[in-house]
Amino acid sequence: MNAWLEKQAAVRERRGLVRTPMTRKAADTPVDLASNDYLGLATDPRLAEAAREAIGRWGTGATSSRLVAGTTALHLELEAGLANLTGMESALVFSSGYLANLGVTTALGGPGTLIVADEHCHASLVDGFRLSRSRVETVLHNGLAAIEQLLRHRTEPRAFITVESIYSVFGDAAPLPQLLALAEEYDAVLLVDEAHSLGVAGHGAFQGHGSVAGTDLSGHPNVVLTATLSKSLGSQGGVVLGSALLREHLINRARSFIFDTGLAPSSAAAALAAVGIIRAEPWRAAAVHRNAAILTAGLAPALLGPGTVVAHVGKPAGAVQSIPMPSAAAALASSQAAHRAGVRVGCFRPPSVPDGVSRLRLTARATLTAHDIDHACATLRRILEETQ
Amino acid sequence: MNAWLEKQAAVRERRGLVRTPMTRKAADTPVDLASNDYLGLATDPRLAEAAREAIGRWGTGATSSRLVAGTTALHLELEAGLANLTGMESALVFSSGYLANLGVTTALGGPGTLIVADEHCHASLVDGFRLSRSRVETVLHNGLAAIEQLLRHRTEPRAFITVESIYSVFGDAAPLPQLLALAEEYDAVLLVDEAHSLGVAGHGAFQGHGSVAGTDLSGHPNVVLTATLSKSLGSQGGVVLGSALLREHLINRARSFIFDTGLAPSSAAAALAAVGIIRAEPWRAAAVHRNAAILTAGLAPALLGPGTVVAHVGKPAGAVQSIPMPSAAAALASSQAAHRAGVRVGCFRPPSVPDGVSRLRLTARATLTAHDIDHACATLRRILEETQ
Ligand SMILES: Cc1ncc(COP(=O)(O)O)c(C=O)c1O
Ligand SMILES: Cc1ncc(COP(=O)(O)O)c(C=O)c1O
Repeated sequence: MNAWLEKQAAVRERRGLVRTPMTRKAADTPVDLASNDYLGLATDPRLAEAAREAIGRWGTGATSSRLVAGTTALHLELEAGLANLTGMESALVFSSGYLANLGVTTALGGPGTLIVADEHCHASLVDGFRLSRSRVETVLHNGLAAIEQLLRHRTEPRAFITVESIYSVFGDAAPLPQLLALAEEYDAVLLVDEAHSLGVAGHGAFQGHGSVAGTDLSGHPNVVLTATLSKSLGSQGGVVLGSALLREHLINRARSFIFDTGLAPSSAAAALAAVGIIRAEPWRAAAVHRNAAILTAGLAPALLGPGTVVAHVGKPAGAVQSIPMPSAAAALASSQAAHRAGVRVGCFRPPSVPDGVSRLRLTARATLTAHDIDHACATLRRILEETQ
Repeated sequence: MNAWLEKQAAVRERRGLVRTPMTRKAADTPVDLASNDYLGLATDPRLAEAAREAIGRWGTGATSSRLVAGTTALHLELEAGLANLTGMESALVFSSGYLANLGVTTALGGPGTLIVADEHCHASLVDGFRLSRSRVETVLHNGLAAIEQLLRHRTEPRAFITVESIYSVFGDAAPLPQLLALAEEYDAVLLVDEAHSLGVAGHGAFQGHGSVAGTDLSGHPNVVLTATLSKSLGSQGGVVLGSALLREHLINRARSFIFDTGLAPSSAAAALAAVGIIRAEPWRAAAVHRNAAILTAGLAPALLGPGTVVAHVGKPAGAVQSIPMPSAAAALASSQAAHRAGVRVGCFRPPSVPDGVSRLRLTARATLTAHDIDHACATLRRILEETQ
């Protein structure tokens, strides 16, 4: 094995694709434009208090599968809260968003199912497609015509369309109303991953409730949602949202639910507290959008300079701003230079980018101060100009 | 979708296979022979304190992938502690044991790889095999001859053997020394899932360090371990243990590591505290074995009665005692009767049983009192005798 591992490592090295986790120290205080703690709730004292109390009441672990002894009253309360927030009938909580996506795709898919997937779908969805033994067809990003073609000409009795309401790396949105129309017309399920929308997207009274809440999709019989509790909700875990019938089906069929230890009670409690805060403090979602606009404007001079790839650098749909870079090495060097200047940004290189283009990924988090954003813009402008 | 879901639900109903999570309430105090909290650490105040402190220092979530901002100093400390406990060079922590198993199997497997798997391997391993696109051959439980045949006649350059050191449902052990000899002879990797061994198995100074610690397997270049932090360690999360080179490979290649939010700091802290307690308090592992023996002896009159399937009811290798039942309905009714009498046991029915035989699963946890075990034995004897 070692010879094989060494060969693989050498290839990575040569291509500039070696990853090493940067370790956070408790004393670190960079301006955080890298994490997915969009609303700043991961360090909110109310989540901390809820998690601490849950530890006292339930202990530090769920102790077994949700089906054995791993379902506490807290898990059910969280499920009710999430269903309510998004306007869906039912919710089932998993120990991660990754396992939620594996669970729903494998339990709904199978022979006799066509999955039409956007090419930018998250790895956890792609793994689920493969595991499900469905026929999987990947379409160009946001390619409505291709989706329609595939649905119209399918021979399978069942089909689903899979998208992210806001895409994790590019930060752009899926055309949900048009997708729903297709799902209705062709009797397909529309599976929407709300990982980067929950807490951030939503209009009017539904600000922060996600892209689906308050729209025709919410509670629609053809619509199934997934989300993670680890981004806006500042915790850990995942959820599938749909009908009560779907929930019961997943409990009985989703291997990543049945054969996995339940979510730790502290994480369930923190996520439940976050649901309450999202309802009570819509200013947080609003601040994400405001900060995203300021960040986009502040970076524009660098991004519009000569030689820069400006494709996909537009107004972000949520918190995520994606900046294409000329190479993997440039992306890494730029993110390291930013970090030295006290600004943490995400560095995404193959295979973590859907189009093979390395990029910086910035998150316009709600709790960034005006000063943080100014400093980040100035730093990144300088670095991006030097990269060209 | 709903018509299809309803049809599936009706089939389940007809077969007596409907699952519904029993919800734990904080005031519930049944004798717990169901959970995998083998050492009683999930409610240990030291784990609680460590988790609470981590929440204060790091927040309630890891906020992003381990590769972006989700690696804290605590994650590295936990990895060092786990490597040390098991005698392996390196460790990489995942957000669940499920995702650890998916990660290692997919990152090591692939075309050109033969996976020889025991038929009782856990769902998370089986899913990983399928995802990895390796050739997968399943062998009869503990079938050394079949494993050898497959390894000897393989055409693939790479191979691994996959087992659990103590099997999750049957509770019996894998023949590790013989498996290591095969791995050496045929240049294969021996992948051992220590989920139900860590904290429980181990001899002499290594009591509780797992089945591998202190044996020839520990630190062996052909051996890779996985484990979960959600059973003996009373927390949540998973780990892969092997060489530093393997760790680096997983960081770069395991999709379930790269594309998943890091383990919540509170869960990492609780697991780290558990590692210290396992070292300091070997009486806990000893108590599991003693309680298992008492439980087996106490149930023997019922199990050896006329008409009982006694196969696989032997001395458990760890905490798990498995009792075959005549039908899915009998297993469910018995576990419900036990619960009404204040004893919680696991009820395993297809597809959660490797041989299709429904069963009760009892865990001889370290912190059960003599009175708890007496009560459990009396209750279960009565119920089992009535079932026959
Ligand atoms: C779109 C999307 N879906 C699912 C996930 C997985 O969620 P989790 O990290 O909770 O496993 C992520 C990110 O991690 C994501 O970006
Ligand atoms: C043998 C085995 N491996 C892996 C797992 C998965 O671990 P986790 O629950 O942490 O996902 C389990 C049980 O849940 C198990 O029994």
